[in-house]
Amino acid sequence: MSEHFIDRLIDAGRARGTFAVVGLDPVLSRLPAAIRPAGDPPQLADAVNAVRAFGRAVIDRCAAHVPAVKINIAFFEALYAAGVDLYHEMAEYAHRAGLLVIGDIKRGDIGSTARLYGQAHLAAPAVDDVSAARIPDAVTLAGYLGENAVTPFIDIATREGKGVFVLVRPSDPGADQVHEFPNEAPGKFYQHMADLVARWGSAAACIGSAGYSCVGAVIAAKDIESTRALRARMPKAWFLVPGYGAQGGTAERCAACFNPDGLGAIVNASRSVIYAFDNDRYSAEHGDDWQACIEASCRDFAADIARIRDMKRE
Amino acid sequence: MSEHFIDRLIDAGRARGTFAVVGLDPVLSRLPAAIRPAGDPPQLADAVNAVRAFGRAVIDRCAAHVPAVKINIAFFEALYAAGVDLYHEMAEYAHRAGLLVIGDIKRGDIGSTARLYGQAHLAAPAVDDVSAARIPDAVTLAGYLGENAVTPFIDIATREGKGVFVLVRPSDPGADQVHEFPNEAPGKFYQHMADLVARWGSAAACIGSAGYSCVGAVIAAKDIESTRALRARMPKAWFLVPGYGAQGGTAERCAACFNPDGLGAIVNASRSVIYAFDNDRYSAEHGDDWQACIEASCRDFAADIARIRDMKRE
Repeated sequence: MSEHFIDRLIDAGRARGTFAVVGLDPVLSRLPAAIRPAGDPPQLADAVNAVRAFGRAVIDRCAAHVPAVKINIAFFEALYAAGVDLYHEMAEYAHRAGLLVIGDIKRGDIGSTARLYGQAHLAAPAVDDVSAARIPDAVTLAGYLGENAVTPFIDIATREGKGVFVLVRPSDPGADQVHEFPNEAPGKFYQHMADLVARWGSAAACIGSAGYSCVGAVIAAKDIESTRALRARMPKAWFLVPGYGAQGGTAERCAACFNPDGLGAIVNASRSVIYAFDNDRYSAEHGDDWQACIEASCRDFAADIARIRDMKRE
Repeated sequence: MSEHFIDRLIDAGRARGTFAVVGLDPVLSRLPAAIRPAGDPPQLADAVNAVRAFGRAVIDRCAAHVPAVKINIAFFEALYAAGVDLYHEMAEYAHRAGLLVIGDIKRGDIGSTARLYGQAHLAAPAVDDVSAARIPDAVTLAGYLGENAVTPFIDIATREGKGVFVLVRPSDPGADQVHEFPNEAPGKFYQHMADLVARWGSAAACIGSAGYSCVGAVIAAKDIESTRALRARMPKAWFLVPGYGAQGGTAERCAACFNPDGLGAIVNASRSVIYAFDNDRYSAEHGDDWQACIEASCRDFAADIARIRDMKRE
């Protein structure tokens, strides 16, 4: 059996001194003017080449500062099969740069379909001529179809040293109309999901040497009190925390996702890092050097999250 | 604006005399021996070619009997980018055969990501050299991240004459641990989702000339009473009903998904049709002619659903 995913994540985070993950969500219209594709609409191959150049630069500039990259497949699927090929190419590129790769796929479907999604996105390839390096180390999942939708992924994770992060508390306020259900009762839907995810990841085969499960959770850092309650509710689940930076997560709220030992969470920033060249704070210093802006922003982000973690360890 | 998706679906269903949809969920190991790829594991291109031959045969044999095909992308993603390319190729092939195409993608993510998924899977291509025929007429969605996750798709649907089916009640019993929440209260999570979906699809721009919304729902036909309650709860939503045949849906339970006028639902069968060559009922008559088995099973399925609809119109 391969080494446990969370153990690998802890080693990588300690090596970089931070549990920060950069999210690669490339939108064509927001790419630096220097590499944006010509044509309106552009040719597909030109669009793919632009996203490839951008993604490689993000990975090159961030690999020394963070332990992992989260690649959001939606932004690649928008370029159809050529985009999906690039998604897998980016995973391999990030692996070669020494990064762990989280595939942000949010898949969720019933048993037989879940098995195929697991084969597609987390398992070692079942065909002869596809490299395992093209497949992420962990993926995000939607658990709303219950245990049978998640079990095929957990089986792969325990067998191959990989991980999953099941969506428990989304960052988008619009999701409250689902996750705060029922409005009048104390037990909310997101707490129910938290209990289910904790249970799904509780088997001994899921637990690594640091005591964490390969079944983690996506937990947006909302008010500190409710995050602390979630932290207590699912002690063995590693939290993937979205929304730092552009989505408005603050350091204090993110700190509540960590355990007192400074472990238990990895915090994601996407737009605030990869589009840092649109931020005066960075472009004032680096001008048109968009890659330098990305690296400076990544360094700041990594340091922010390192500080948050130190806050917890005091 | 293009013609409303449900109006197109009603026309196509009336032309075939049935509201049955065949689900294309090809698993390599279940393909007919005659076309299964050599090698263990096989080469990727050989696997893709086998699924292509199978998918074309299913479409060729079913196009005269049903108005639509539902293509489950998970089974194509398992062959990586080459499989995704084949998914879009199958959509185009089905369109040329005169079928409506439902992309079974079950995507669900927050606003900015949802916009990209909508561009990927439902909207007219935003690049110059991809044919609109490769994009489905409707897709299945997960609505668990709330309105902002679905709105980008609804905007595309109203603008381009397309449709969405939001998951409200899954067929897998394992999903009950989520959808029957809370256990002790009368108002269940799936009923809450039904109310949300009905609300999301209620705008005048969503309603076609037959009175149905372009925002439909995936509704498994469980007990008749609860299905009738859902039918009353979301009168303008067209139901996509999974699980006929292999998953054990019965005619009476599916009948409760239709309105008294014989409209309001389309029933899906996947495995019972596409793997009919493994069923003695068909192989006894057609022997090794797996394509004839598929066509015979599809004809029976289409007739079953036509009868169900007639039951409702008496």
